[in-house]
Amino acid sequence: MSLKLFIPGPVNVEPDVLEKMATVQIAHRSKIATELQERISKSLQKLMYTDETIILSTSSGSGIMEMAIKSCTKKRAAMFSVGAFGDRWYKMAVTNNVPADYFKSEPGMPTTPEMVEEALKTGLYDVVAVTHNETSSGLLNPVYEIGQVIAKYPDVVYLVDAVSSLGGSKIEVDKSHIDICLSSTQKCLGLPPGLSVASVSEKAIERAKTVENRGFYLDLLNIVNRVKKDFQYPSTPSTPHMWALDYKLAKILNIEGLENRFDRHGKLAKIVQEWALKHFDLFAKEGYRSNTVTTIINTKGNSVADLNKELGKRGYMISNGYGDLKEKAFRIAHMADRSEEDLNALLREIENIWNL
Amino acid sequence: MSLKLFIPGPVNVEPDVLEKMATVQIAHRSKIATELQERISKSLQKLMYTDETIILSTSSGSGIMEMAIKSCTKKRAAMFSVGAFGDRWYKMAVTNNVPADYFKSEPGMPTTPEMVEEALKTGLYDVVAVTHNETSSGLLNPVYEIGQVIAKYPDVVYLVDAVSSLGGSKIEVDKSHIDICLSSTQKCLGLPPGLSVASVSEKAIERAKTVENRGFYLDLLNIVNRVKKDFQYPSTPSTPHMWALDYKLAKILNIEGLENRFDRHGKLAKIVQEWALKHFDLFAKEGYRSNTVTTIINTKGNSVADLNKELGKRGYMISNGYGDLKEKAFRIAHMADRSEEDLNALLREIENIWNL
Repeated sequence: MSLKLFIPGPVNVEPDVLEKMATVQIAHRSKIATELQERISKSLQKLMYTDETIILSTSSGSGIMEMAIKSCTKKRAAMFSVGAFGDRWYKMAVTNNVPADYFKSEPGMPTTPEMVEEALKTGLYDVVAVTHNETSSGLLNPVYEIGQVIAKYPDVVYLVDAVSSLGGSKIEVDKSHIDICLSSTQKCLGLPPGLSVASVSEKAIERAKTVENRGFYLDLLNIVNRVKKDFQYPSTPSTPHMWALDYKLAKILNIEGLENRFDRHGKLAKIVQEWALKHFDLFAKEGYRSNTVTTIINTKGNSVADLNKELGKRGYMISNGYGDLKEKAFRIAHMADRSEEDLNALLREIENIWNL
Repeated sequence: MSLKLFIPGPVNVEPDVLEKMATVQIAHRSKIATELQERISKSLQKLMYTDETIILSTSSGSGIMEMAIKSCTKKRAAMFSVGAFGDRWYKMAVTNNVPADYFKSEPGMPTTPEMVEEALKTGLYDVVAVTHNETSSGLLNPVYEIGQVIAKYPDVVYLVDAVSSLGGSKIEVDKSHIDICLSSTQKCLGLPPGLSVASVSEKAIERAKTVENRGFYLDLLNIVNRVKKDFQYPSTPSTPHMWALDYKLAKILNIEGLENRFDRHGKLAKIVQEWALKHFDLFAKEGYRSNTVTTIINTKGNSVADLNKELGKRGYMISNGYGDLKEKAFRIAHMADRSEEDLNALLREIENIWNL
């Protein structure tokens, strides 16, 4: 039986979108491939509110995160974390021998513009990396406000992990002075896993030109140069994902519409948050709660594993807490193409199973 | 119109295989995901004649090549090249600041066991990288014979790029003492692009443990550890490709059969080689000619671009020469699921267009 997934990716994919994964093969050096990427670039520019270069990476979101941090750090990177995927930014720097420092917020609290300003004032950093939407803690960071601080430091490249928010929460990349905004397909974009996307500013590109040992497959400059030349890639990309992405972006932009899509995610988040506050508690503090995934503190100490087993029989799946929070929290994702009706039905099932 | 692709990847994909790309989404931490990888591992072990660990990388073949070279070189790598993708091995070492030397064969000539022995005798190297089937020059290297030399040097890790041969030419990984044998889906395996595969020996794993700065997304050890634990991946893998790979491997093993598949590729190669020797000349010297892609010297100086335009109208596509050989050669690939009938029809069309 196919489950309704309320996990923070992979998400269920609409049948007509999924069908595009089975598009007949094309030569990756053909005009068709060029036109495909050109359309994807234009659509993603609209979705991300940017005029900058769009690239894809045939990798998970982690691949394109590593590409960004490794290709753009010349001096030292300041990695801000509000959870497991913020920690990953820092881990990537360490495993690549990229000089970096780690700034962690208190549990449930965001990365603030003040924290970033304090770090930048030292003059030590030329890269700031921030998580927009932290998949583990359900926390949404103020990337626009942080961007206004970064704009005062012209040598600082601003990287934003929007893996679990792009397509669900509005991100105005250019107005937020974001140099690389990255995401992947299996979250709010409503596609299967296997491809990641990013916007790349001229500032990031100029920086990468000065950085040595950027590697090969995840070398930002190698990819950007080829995309700028003819909308193709140095290595063969996952064209099945590109067909599905192209089709899905057209649906998002022309059928649902961006504002409607963001509003729908906001409404779903509100439903889950109110429900959670009634029965449990929320991990993220007010004002910093995600529109796409809600992390609920398991105040009643029920078994999340047992809940998921029972939900499975009824056709649903949610997530346990991530890492340390495994049984101390549970997560309900409300991303991509979920409806209010779907979500309400899930919440009724949980109430029923747990006698809430 | 969908073309019959005679290019060295991407190849045409059988409709029933392609359909598997549109399998409904699963949670990548579920038991279904574990079972899927377990089946893939068993099938790839058979296809590669190995008992070692099988891993996948959501990347092109270049990604997994880089993973191998970066994770296994502690001392210095000897990179043997017979064309553009052999050159890539070396380029990857350079861009990753991995100490390496470059050994290039004369045009049309293979990497020989003697060349490898001469290099290893210096005691300088702990990694040897060889291309099995060079996609640019249509040359097949004697990886088994090279392996017998390498077996005499217990500290040397042996990496083989089988991107354009695995599934078309027999490679006995364990008997050839290959530590990492790697490939990707869009060539002889007959699948869409977007995933790469490798066998990894215990020797390669032990070596990786001693190498620093292996990075994150392409860290061999990170992936091997997780696969050994529960047949899952550190980052979300491309499950659509995994479903298609699982299904296709079962077809290869249980319907066509390995020996039949290798024989068919051999027969197709012979047809093209005889045809090419009658009308043109072959780039690779006798005894070292690929079973999966034939590089033909354009002795008549006809325009390959014009040929491909005309072939396109008739429903076919071949490749021009790669890099320096762009107009000096052309390439006919005969990999994955091509039939003799298909191939003969293509050759008749070329004869017709060029008045051969």
